[in-house]
Amino acid sequence: MIPNEVFTALQLTQSVGETAQQQGHPQPPLEWPYDPQATLIPLPGVETLKPPPADLWQIMAQRRTLRHYADQPLTLEELALLLWATQGVRQVTKRPATLRTVPSAGARHAFETLLLVNRVSGLGKGVYRYLALRHALLPYETEANIAPRLYAACYEQEHILHSAVTFFWVAVTERMTWRYGARGLRYLFLDAGHVCQNLYLAAEGLGCGVCAIGAFDDTALNPALNLDGRTAFVIYGATVGKRAPRPEP
Amino acid sequence: MIPNEVFTALQLTQSVGETAQQQGHPQPPLEWPYDPQATLIPLPGVETLKPPPADLWQIMAQRRTLRHYADQPLTLEELALLLWATQGVRQVTKRPATLRTVPSAGARHAFETLLLVNRVSGLGKGVYRYLALRHALLPYETEANIAPRLYAACYEQEHILHSAVTFFWVAVTERMTWRYGARGLRYLFLDAGHVCQNLYLAAEGLGCGVCAIGAFDDTALNPALNLDGRTAFVIYGATVGKRAPRPEP
Repeated sequence: MIPNEVFTALQLTQSVGETAQQQGHPQPPLEWPYDPQATLIPLPGVETLKPPPADLWQIMAQRRTLRHYADQPLTLEELALLLWATQGVRQVTKRPATLRTVPSAGARHAFETLLLVNRVSGLGKGVYRYLALRHALLPYETEANIAPRLYAACYEQEHILHSAVTFFWVAVTERMTWRYGARGLRYLFLDAGHVCQNLYLAAEGLGCGVCAIGAFDDTALNPALNLDGRTAFVIYGATVGKRAPRPEP
Repeated sequence: MIPNEVFTALQLTQSVGETAQQQGHPQPPLEWPYDPQATLIPLPGVETLKPPPADLWQIMAQRRTLRHYADQPLTLEELALLLWATQGVRQVTKRPATLRTVPSAGARHAFETLLLVNRVSGLGKGVYRYLALRHALLPYETEANIAPRLYAACYEQEHILHSAVTFFWVAVTERMTWRYGARGLRYLFLDAGHVCQNLYLAAEGLGCGVCAIGAFDDTALNPALNLDGRTAFVIYGATVGKRAPRPEP
């Protein structure tokens, strides 16, 4: 009953061998490069945000998946807080490595965050990249009117079209495998789970709800976001929106 | 630089095919069976626990990995809260499926929790299994003095020997692949990340610290815990202990 592919895949991630780091290759950069002349969209600094008080235990107890959202947009402050909670950089160490609001194997932090923005005050619809080191947004080039294509690539999950914003976490493979070889594949998925859990909790603390997205056609979703599926691939996603007054059906 | 195994493994998890569920096979049970005559160790009910107030945003901001712990034991109340935060069952639905404090793909919740107890008030050293549906512990049979073997299987990570308790999350493969086939392997790792992130945050809220464990020799760790590595395998682990007064070196 258990597909053989599962075990083959697991065994492949058990191989260690000599990693790129051990072979003396240089560490990949901490983030994707971008045009230094590009116009960034600054985000409100976390220290200036005043999120509503939220009790950790209460938030954990009440968190649940939400697929239907209010029409109300997210504010840029709320989006900034969600980005901080999921990938916010606390410190850049000398190695260099980043320390963030989530843990990552060996502080590799191998993700880039892409956002499909539908309904965020002050932001036009489209895809943006979060620059974690700058805590800013950068427009991310895709074909025009990309939402229907992303929706189709995710097997027509309706909440993508109705969300305020959909997060797509992109694994930049070498940032993890440089140190850990094939074992790093496991760590990428574990790390993506850390990130998504913080999104769930932070969203709950803001009166929002989340639905994680793991089901998608990789061969459709990666090209739609200009990813080759090898050096970089969508590893996980999640829709977010304000909680609607009506209960989940 | 990116190992070919990584892509082979990823591609294997893209295959969908007809799943066991689609083939009409019955759903695997929600948890491992156990002897109904066994003497369980009840845990304090979550509604009776009075954890210290913890602000979600503050906890997220201050969370960091901790590998050195105070000698002080965890109380059974604290352990109960950590188990609730990581796998606590909120509801059993009619499907049947469990809804828990963490999200899981399709509410599969394919994990069993094993604990290596070193220093928890009222519990002898050894391995225990968390019965999430009963919110109780059950002694888990291993060879005597198992800690050094688990430590060795985890490449001698010292914090396993010095922790108050080490969590080992066991993936019960078929509980996920029954519905999702090989794609379920990705979901297992994503789900384990959700769980570990809640452990980090709950521990932080209790004045404890956590160090996640993803590096281990599967061929040594699984047999040490009587797992065949196929129908069930350790997917992730984490040490927990009280924060020591001295800072991390």
